[in-house]
Amino acid sequence: MNEKALFKLTYGVHVITSIKGDRMNGQIANTAIQVTSSPVKIAVSINKDNLTHEFIKASKLFAVSVVAEDAPLSLIGQFGFKSGRDADKFQGVAYKLTSNGVPYITEHTLSYIEVKVLQEVDVGTHTIFIGEMVDGDVLQEGTPMTYAYYHEIKKGAVPKTAPTYNKLKEEAAASNDSSGKYICKICGYVYDPAVGDPDGGIAPGTAFEDIPDDWVCPVCGAAKSNFEKA
Amino acid sequence: MNEKALFKLTYGVHVITSIKGDRMNGQIANTAIQVTSSPVKIAVSINKDNLTHEFIKASKLFAVSVVAEDAPLSLIGQFGFKSGRDADKFQGVAYKLTSNGVPYITEHTLSYIEVKVLQEVDVGTHTIFIGEMVDGDVLQEGTPMTYAYYHEIKKGAVPKTAPTYNKLKEEAAASNDSSGKYICKICGYVYDPAVGDPDGGIAPGTAFEDIPDDWVCPVCGAAKSNFEKA
Repeated sequence: MNEKALFKLTYGVHVITSIKGDRMNGQIANTAIQVTSSPVKIAVSINKDNLTHEFIKASKLFAVSVVAEDAPLSLIGQFGFKSGRDADKFQGVAYKLTSNGVPYITEHTLSYIEVKVLQEVDVGTHTIFIGEMVDGDVLQEGTPMTYAYYHEIKKGAVPKTAPTYNKLKEEAAASNDSSGKYICKICGYVYDPAVGDPDGGIAPGTAFEDIPDDWVCPVCGAAKSNFEKA
Repeated sequence: MNEKALFKLTYGVHVITSIKGDRMNGQIANTAIQVTSSPVKIAVSINKDNLTHEFIKASKLFAVSVVAEDAPLSLIGQFGFKSGRDADKFQGVAYKLTSNGVPYITEHTLSYIEVKVLQEVDVGTHTIFIGEMVDGDVLQEGTPMTYAYYHEIKKGAVPKTAPTYNKLKEEAAASNDSSGKYICKICGYVYDPAVGDPDGGIAPGTAFEDIPDDWVCPVCGAAKSNFEKA
């Protein structure tokens, strides 16, 4: 059995948001799919360790914000690699609320879908939440970011709580020519001098040593001092 | 509520295959996702009306074959628009069997994943089958076909039993400038003379009237006589 077969599956990149009382939280998820059309039902797979899981369990509501291909890595870092237990994930992020009070992201996103949960399926480390679409709209035209694009073009990392997290990915990243590459110890993002970090103002061809000290990991926001030679 | 928000969700294109006794069948599905990583669990949403649904219910086994971007529309037509009740869907298709006897497609596919079903979730018109990956391999390197690519580049149609089938899509197709376009009454595929059907030997710029009479719909295989002016 070769688990690399899984890498050929296609996903989008979504911010899944929810509420609990007057608190709100959100996280990145690639698994957000429409499972029926009459009525429209949506399913997401959420790790039980995540705060968003607790919020969806409590409110039975979540929203899917579809991330655009040209979104900066910082949006994914903000929702994907920080915990809502430690930080306000919505700081500096443009969002609005549905009539039920569920936030959705209005910048660097193409559409949102609000879902009222009808079924919860325990699949081990994760719960699949399935529910009916109760609100939603197109926010702008454009191309959705795919998970493959996030990895290959954006050089994005995957948190260990993601359903698609896989040791093989770390190994694949590590087995490439690592000359000049540095890895973020927090999230696993690999800085490749050939690529640079154009979103963060670092031109392709910039050696890691020449990056300003106030530069932060584009994925998780960790300081430059958290990087080590790959 | 604007259901067009759903069009921004990203999917792959997969052939879902299964067995019942010594019979085998398969269908196209866009919903095939990994839901946990330890162990690897996969979920698919299958319409209860489909023969593949009956087969998965019976054998508790299915395989996901990931369709390559450069696959011909005929592969999708063969598995997506014909019923296994009327036709042998595997005729002329290259496939192999897993050790459990489940077929997977070996041509125009990038990888396959065999799944043993552990949970079935009734979501109305469809059942979500969730199970553990028991076999799988990469078949070739390449880019997976996305559902968006199938629609926009391949001009593919959607069967009414798909979870993402939506009246809006038909209307959107019909509202475009229809000069010279012909629509397949069987599957809804639109022949656009500007695009032609290169996979079927019809060059871009060929008027529908000039297509040979033995040409068939690239999606469902229906005869040319099943087309009407769009």
